[in-house]
Amino acid sequence: MVDRYQRFAATGFGGFVTKRLGLPRPPHLYRHSPENPRSPGPVLLATTEDATVTGALHAILAEGGTPVHTCTSPDPTPDEPQEPGSLILDATGITETTQLCTLHRLLGPRVRSLRAGGRVLVVGTPATDCRTLGAAVAQRSLEGFTRALAKELRMGATVNLIYVPAQAPTTAASTVRFLVSDRSAYVSGQTLHLSETTQSTNTEPPTPPIAEVAPLADTVAVVTGAARGIGATIAETAARDGAQVLCIDVPHAGAHLADTATRVGGQALELDITEDDAPQRIVAAARHHFGRLDVMVHNAGITRDKTLARMSAQQWDAVLSVNLLAAQRITERLVDPTDPVLGPGGRVVCTSSISGIAGNAGQTNYSTSKAGLIGLVTALAPTAAERGATVNAIAPGFIETPMTEAMPLLVREAGRRMNSLRQGGTPQDVAEAVCYLADPGTGGVNGQVLRVCGQSLIGA
Amino acid sequence: MVDRYQRFAATGFGGFVTKRLGLPRPPHLYRHSPENPRSPGPVLLATTEDATVTGALHAILAEGGTPVHTCTSPDPTPDEPQEPGSLILDATGITETTQLCTLHRLLGPRVRSLRAGGRVLVVGTPATDCRTLGAAVAQRSLEGFTRALAKELRMGATVNLIYVPAQAPTTAASTVRFLVSDRSAYVSGQTLHLSETTQSTNTEPPTPPIAEVAPLADTVAVVTGAARGIGATIAETAARDGAQVLCIDVPHAGAHLADTATRVGGQALELDITEDDAPQRIVAAARHHFGRLDVMVHNAGITRDKTLARMSAQQWDAVLSVNLLAAQRITERLVDPTDPVLGPGGRVVCTSSISGIAGNAGQTNYSTSKAGLIGLVTALAPTAAERGATVNAIAPGFIETPMTEAMPLLVREAGRRMNSLRQGGTPQDVAEAVCYLADPGTGGVNGQVLRVCGQSLIGA
Repeated sequence: MVDRYQRFAATGFGGFVTKRLGLPRPPHLYRHSPENPRSPGPVLLATTEDATVTGALHAILAEGGTPVHTCTSPDPTPDEPQEPGSLILDATGITETTQLCTLHRLLGPRVRSLRAGGRVLVVGTPATDCRTLGAAVAQRSLEGFTRALAKELRMGATVNLIYVPAQAPTTAASTVRFLVSDRSAYVSGQTLHLSETTQSTNTEPPTPPIAEVAPLADTVAVVTGAARGIGATIAETAARDGAQVLCIDVPHAGAHLADTATRVGGQALELDITEDDAPQRIVAAARHHFGRLDVMVHNAGITRDKTLARMSAQQWDAVLSVNLLAAQRITERLVDPTDPVLGPGGRVVCTSSISGIAGNAGQTNYSTSKAGLIGLVTALAPTAAERGATVNAIAPGFIETPMTEAMPLLVREAGRRMNSLRQGGTPQDVAEAVCYLADPGTGGVNGQVLRVCGQSLIGA
Repeated sequence: MVDRYQRFAATGFGGFVTKRLGLPRPPHLYRHSPENPRSPGPVLLATTEDATVTGALHAILAEGGTPVHTCTSPDPTPDEPQEPGSLILDATGITETTQLCTLHRLLGPRVRSLRAGGRVLVVGTPATDCRTLGAAVAQRSLEGFTRALAKELRMGATVNLIYVPAQAPTTAASTVRFLVSDRSAYVSGQTLHLSETTQSTNTEPPTPPIAEVAPLADTVAVVTGAARGIGATIAETAARDGAQVLCIDVPHAGAHLADTATRVGGQALELDITEDDAPQRIVAAARHHFGRLDVMVHNAGITRDKTLARMSAQQWDAVLSVNLLAAQRITERLVDPTDPVLGPGGRVVCTSSISGIAGNAGQTNYSTSKAGLIGLVTALAPTAAERGATVNAIAPGFIETPMTEAMPLLVREAGRRMNSLRQGGTPQDVAEAVCYLADPGTGGVNGQVLRVCGQSLIGA
């Protein structure tokens, strides 16, 4: 869990040596700390005349008390914040390929002024809202721009892209706040396609001011694999954000599971999620303890690595059963029309993986299961939307856990450095992303896969 | 252009050293040679009872004279080919997550029998044809499986995945042949989504036997950036496959352009494609020399690398103009409804890049332009389909050219080794993929991006 190289590189001597040798120099990441939150810093909102969501973005940001300065000129003006915390570009006004120069003209002179651990957020128009070929081409170009810029910036800065429908820009509120906050420190180079919120407006909770956030208050969250590691951190973070948590893990992890449940003031359920009656037992337990179930986090997962030729049937079947089939069966139960569990605002978050996106040698079983979870959220999203619910996945990259600690040195070092932030993520990074997707305010994000990987080089 | 490391590793001493040190050991790739083609080797076609396209796959392969052996049992039988050239899995019968074990049971015992430079092809059902959630999940899982297996196999074997509509499996003929042939030596870990062919059946050319292929006979192909490098190789390969070629490049490359045109028995057009009248001049030249234009290959591209903060307006604008805007304007001309140039069987192939998919530091302009080309093929595909035409992109990874030869040693070595085949591709690899997409028989592939990258690690 300790990245000794990063510690060394952060010392005066280490900084000197790594710079001289051209070695990776992992920046300090400013992660969200509820006890000691960093001031959000002023927002510089760059926009063009024809942009469609600038007003909404301004309102979303200003509501949290953040000073927002709007700029439209290529030349920075003296009244602009000198060291903005975030640089947001409303690119929805770009409807021709020729207008892409706006990206260069507005951001080029300003990216260097971004403070350490700053945020760049590009906001575009969804393909379905593009009325001309030029608009569709230009808007799709933003992905290449975002990913390239995310690989350039230093000092722990991140760059992300969201496509926001002009009809419903406020649907982006929780997403904008997450992506400009320190909670998304390990999320970079990513694209999210927002849709109109799946939640009917009459049940939409009032948007709370950013400083008083307990976004999961009054929700009941279930987390599988919660005894230890990332699952335990997800349970803790959900509780921090106000959720009542049902923690699930296999019986032989019972002692650790009880610890987690106690720590989060929640309930524990010892259960093998691959059992036939697991979906029923989860619903029954949630209803028994809390009267409902709002958020389902499919975090439990196992690995049984072997090349396909050497893999036993048991190794294949165990990974598929735990990682994919159990999550699928539980989710099907939650949206069963004869006795639906998830209501409006319901949230399912699956833990996929970079291996599910890019594949990994020795992990045909694991990669198959994690790709299947992407299929699950894609295929189920329309059904979820009909219920006012969402189903999404996260795809962690290299996360510092006891499992990665046990890797051979060179494999571990390669995994840690092969991303734009030159370091591994933490379980907290994953948990923050899960809780953002679990937020009742995140109804505009559905059927999406969010990588939490520091923009890992690895992909498909 | 010479990979000295690969040459060294291929020697007896080099093989010993690289093995002992655990260094990458690039396999020999069996590339297609028209003068000296390798026998295709027997095909092992693994399938299940409910599979829907086995008969069509069998017919496609058998038509080329390749012996095809169908197997349905996990245990290899004595009459199976001992060293198949290709292993094809018809996975369209997998309609439940529980049936994914078929992948392990049928392929696990057989992948090691594949000959050097063999091919694995997984065939699935398109998401739109999946009637249950289980089917959609299971079919999406195939992507993870394919990419993982592609990272496992050695000896230059490749693994790819195609989704084939059950209603029109013969639409896959040219794709199946390309992916099992030596022409796709550097294409691995890729997924193609086939649709029903965009070409009306009454104009569909008869499928030629695989051995007598001149797939571009009677077509007129235009290649930009054809004076040298990859563009020249595309022109040569199109001519090899029977096309009449109009070669385009900027005036100052005129001498090399004339050489290419002479070599391919085609015509040369000196033209700056960013000029306002370039689309008109291209169409006029093709009609003047050949009476028509069937295939447009947007190969011309430039780089002007700088970080965004240091990039000049000229550097940004030049790259966007050549790489994206010119391709967009020419393509718009080709499908202009008032005077359409592309008829049924028309083909547009854009050269995108891994940088357009994943972004690259110092290349915000290039990555933006190459992502825009992906937007172009995505957005224009429906329009093309209405005309019986297609528009697709290729995305080359690390290709051995004079440009990569000039890279600093370590950057070049990293680029060469960071893919599943542990070596760079050749201009010929790119040209083969372009000509496959340009084939009038490839009407079922539209709006797709095909990476030619040896399954580069880099992605999004």
